[in-house]
Amino acid sequence: MAILVVGSVAFDSLETPSGKRERVLGGAATHFALAASFFTDVRVVGVVGEDFLPAHEAVLTSKGVDTTGIERAPGLSFHWTGSYVKDLNAADTLATDLNVFAEFSPKIPTSYEDSDYLFLANIDPVLQAQVRSQMPRVKMVAGDTMNYWIGAHRENLLKVLRELDVLLINDGEARMLSGESNGLRAAEKIMELGPKSLIVKHGEYGATAYFSARSFGDGVARRPFRSPTMPLGEVMDPTGAGDSFAGGFYGYIASQKTLTPEVFRTAMFYGSVMGSFAVEQFGTERLQKTTKAEIEERFAHLKEISHL
Amino acid sequence: MAILVVGSVAFDSLETPSGKRERVLGGAATHFALAASFFTDVRVVGVVGEDFLPAHEAVLTSKGVDTTGIERAPGLSFHWTGSYVKDLNAADTLATDLNVFAEFSPKIPTSYEDSDYLFLANIDPVLQAQVRSQMPRVKMVAGDTMNYWIGAHRENLLKVLRELDVLLINDGEARMLSGESNGLRAAEKIMELGPKSLIVKHGEYGATAYFSARSFGDGVARRPFRSPTMPLGEVMDPTGAGDSFAGGFYGYIASQKTLTPEVFRTAMFYGSVMGSFAVEQFGTERLQKTTKAEIEERFAHLKEISHL
Repeated sequence: MAILVVGSVAFDSLETPSGKRERVLGGAATHFALAASFFTDVRVVGVVGEDFLPAHEAVLTSKGVDTTGIERAPGLSFHWTGSYVKDLNAADTLATDLNVFAEFSPKIPTSYEDSDYLFLANIDPVLQAQVRSQMPRVKMVAGDTMNYWIGAHRENLLKVLRELDVLLINDGEARMLSGESNGLRAAEKIMELGPKSLIVKHGEYGATAYFSARSFGDGVARRPFRSPTMPLGEVMDPTGAGDSFAGGFYGYIASQKTLTPEVFRTAMFYGSVMGSFAVEQFGTERLQKTTKAEIEERFAHLKEISHL
Repeated sequence: MAILVVGSVAFDSLETPSGKRERVLGGAATHFALAASFFTDVRVVGVVGEDFLPAHEAVLTSKGVDTTGIERAPGLSFHWTGSYVKDLNAADTLATDLNVFAEFSPKIPTSYEDSDYLFLANIDPVLQAQVRSQMPRVKMVAGDTMNYWIGAHRENLLKVLRELDVLLINDGEARMLSGESNGLRAAEKIMELGPKSLIVKHGEYGATAYFSARSFGDGVARRPFRSPTMPLGEVMDPTGAGDSFAGGFYGYIASQKTLTPEVFRTAMFYGSVMGSFAVEQFGTERLQKTTKAEIEERFAHLKEISHL
């Protein structure tokens, strides 16, 4: 079933130990949509400027992604400049030019209204809440956020958290949001804020899912689940790894009839698979070339290297 | 079959977010031996001072650990003072009093000579090499080291590495030893130095095993293996977690007839299980109380939270 994703469609200028790229197509919604497109229909809500050309849009539409909800505005698209030269695991933001994103007010096309799955990518929680309230009948809501919103826009973020089935964040964000350094206790506190389930991403070390008794609607408390990552010989550009993880995870869930613990676990493996492709080349280059056969091969690989 | 472990038997004075302890029994060989004792016979070679009392020795002997090779010397035992108050994942060494360890020259009791498995815990590589040369007929040699030996005693360490079947180190040590930040490339470089297999520990995120074509004597190249950790609600004292991992890992291997890829993987899970007990209380408190039934329960738990 279809996923509606709201988030940034942007250009990234990047420097990593593998090289430099200027103004490659990026943005959380872009990475998410491409990764999820291998599993289900994806519809994007976002805003771009006049620098967003047909060739950029074709990156999405060639994978069947619905771009009806990408609004065109006068001016330039959101542009992020970052470096991973010092540390591949932590982006050093050199510039954030919001451009058309500064005035973004998400509008849901009528043709998107029957979407069953909603993904609130990492944007201002006020915008996340606006989209959530326009989609009252969705079956499931998942979302992402970042340290900036946790720190400076906490009250707005807390409203969004109350509405989430699954929150996906990283270790540092989990510590910041909960005020707890212990992972298990942090997860408990965060799920008390609303999310029924929580995925904490550990970068190159995989991810942990935490569940509450509300996770699968049956009142049963379940143990956490750890998903691994693929050991890769070269990480060319980590940008979008987390969004691609989210896309693979949520895309797989939306492709299944019901959300069971087994579906959730399998979805985490697919998330890890999509994240592993994303980082192998700059921007969306690798995701554009990925095939369904490669995804299944890597899924089997991931199982092989983690199962007794 | 029996494991001979050479390493420190020491006292630790510790401060963690959970509290303070003065002069608790510790040392790499102690943690290793206790963890391995649940799986096989363990024989310790080390040195202690006059402060090592019958009650301390009983911690080991009550688990069937052979202490014949623990030499008594005039003076005080090795004493380490460390703090984890700033960061549970990184010990802050406040004092290292080598005491009797400064003049340690390992002697192998005759009754230890038929040991089939040798573990060289983290000590001066010159001493590791001395022990290795005194045990020429062992079936398998595994070992540990640390940043200090990698940096200041590299040539001596390289001689030991040539003799190892398995080297166990952590992420930072792997980067330092190889000069590579990428895990896969670092592992390849390290195995070229000698170790047939390599385990890189990621602290709270688990461990990765890397294999060479020499790992199982069949010339077959194998993919890495990732083992997870247990999410724990409280980590009281991380001291000895790595040594306990090594003890569980190597103890399980020594309890099996042959080293197969499946035995290696299972051994990593047992390593993770023993590490998880070690950190739940100060020093060796938790390992002393652990039962075989608890180990099997936690092994099943670890499988449950990592397998689809």
